[in-house]
Amino acid sequence: MNSTPNTFPRIQLELPQWITDFLQQQPTTFPTLETRMDFVTTLSKLNIEQGTGGPFGASVFRADTHQLIAPGVNLVLLSKNSLAHAEVMAIMLAQQILGDHDLGAAGLPPQELVTSCEPCAMCLGAICWSGVRHLVCGARGSDAETIGFDEGPKPQNWTAHLEERGISVTLDIGRPNATQVLRNYVEQGGEVYNSRQGPIETPG
Amino acid sequence: MNSTPNTFPRIQLELPQWITDFLQQQPTTFPTLETRMDFVTTLSKLNIEQGTGGPFGASVFRADTHQLIAPGVNLVLLSKNSLAHAEVMAIMLAQQILGDHDLGAAGLPPQELVTSCEPCAMCLGAICWSGVRHLVCGARGSDAETIGFDEGPKPQNWTAHLEERGISVTLDIGRPNATQVLRNYVEQGGEVYNSRQGPIETPG
Repeated sequence: MNSTPNTFPRIQLELPQWITDFLQQQPTTFPTLETRMDFVTTLSKLNIEQGTGGPFGASVFRADTHQLIAPGVNLVLLSKNSLAHAEVMAIMLAQQILGDHDLGAAGLPPQELVTSCEPCAMCLGAICWSGVRHLVCGARGSDAETIGFDEGPKPQNWTAHLEERGISVTLDIGRPNATQVLRNYVEQGGEVYNSRQGPIETPG
Repeated sequence: MNSTPNTFPRIQLELPQWITDFLQQQPTTFPTLETRMDFVTTLSKLNIEQGTGGPFGASVFRADTHQLIAPGVNLVLLSKNSLAHAEVMAIMLAQQILGDHDLGAAGLPPQELVTSCEPCAMCLGAICWSGVRHLVCGARGSDAETIGFDEGPKPQNWTAHLEERGISVTLDIGRPNATQVLRNYVEQGGEVYNSRQGPIETPG
């Protein structure tokens, strides 16, 4: 790359085929918090087994009918994209499917994001801008940190920041099961990729 | 949508054509902080003029040679994707061009993110995971808040959080110019889209 390119590539992100296959065996609505959490935790587990990414699953559901709108799994390594966290995939996909950058826009039913693990700093911000009205989490951020993942620069009172913006937060749904998936990932030698570490370099 | 879809759409994000056209008139390297900031601020200004998005521009540059690697502008409304902030676009594109989810990976030259405005909470997290080694900002978050944009749940000492992760932070480069672009956007009636507001609904 010694000159300015004539064009820039298109960024493309796609769910792996196994998700579509898996969904054929699943119901289309998930009436209880526990069944929705069980679904996203199963996604996180299958994502490891299928070798498509880290131990995180999430989905956007319609908050009134509990219909699955968009699933997501962590695809950072596969897609060579550090943004491709499970929550980000589910949010982007739901926005594309519903045709709006704001999942809380007038005319759309309210939406809920269910995630197998509390959001990192980036996903916390992404949730604020997504338009979802409800957030449901399985494992705690501290559970992810215990196995070596960095949660990033997140305020202590992060749930209050969401609630201030009209987003309800429900924690610890199916936490033991969701945490076990994280532990299994590390025990099986899964890669814990994180932010850069080390000394600050002098700017050039 | 009354049943589970057979497949999910691909998420696609693409820079508008005017950026490629504009780059043909630009140098390929930007030797000083000021010229790099001037470049991204011009992107933020052109993004308004061209009607492709909000008043924010960013770019990833090689930190050693100051070559432009990937530009980015805010494309939230155009792409119907609340993640498509200028910093996110530049980071995703640089990762795709360099073929790694980690812009600080061994074998890659160090990378710098220059942004016309301090990152919001989401972009702050995204910067941590991106692998860039340097961050340079124009307008302050408070300048964006003054015109009505919400910065999101961001720790007060956010620069320290980046520095802890080996990312240098340089603030206030070309701040008056970058702030003027924000002001112009609002004075011209540009849409200030934000997180949902209003009361918390009872989960269904």
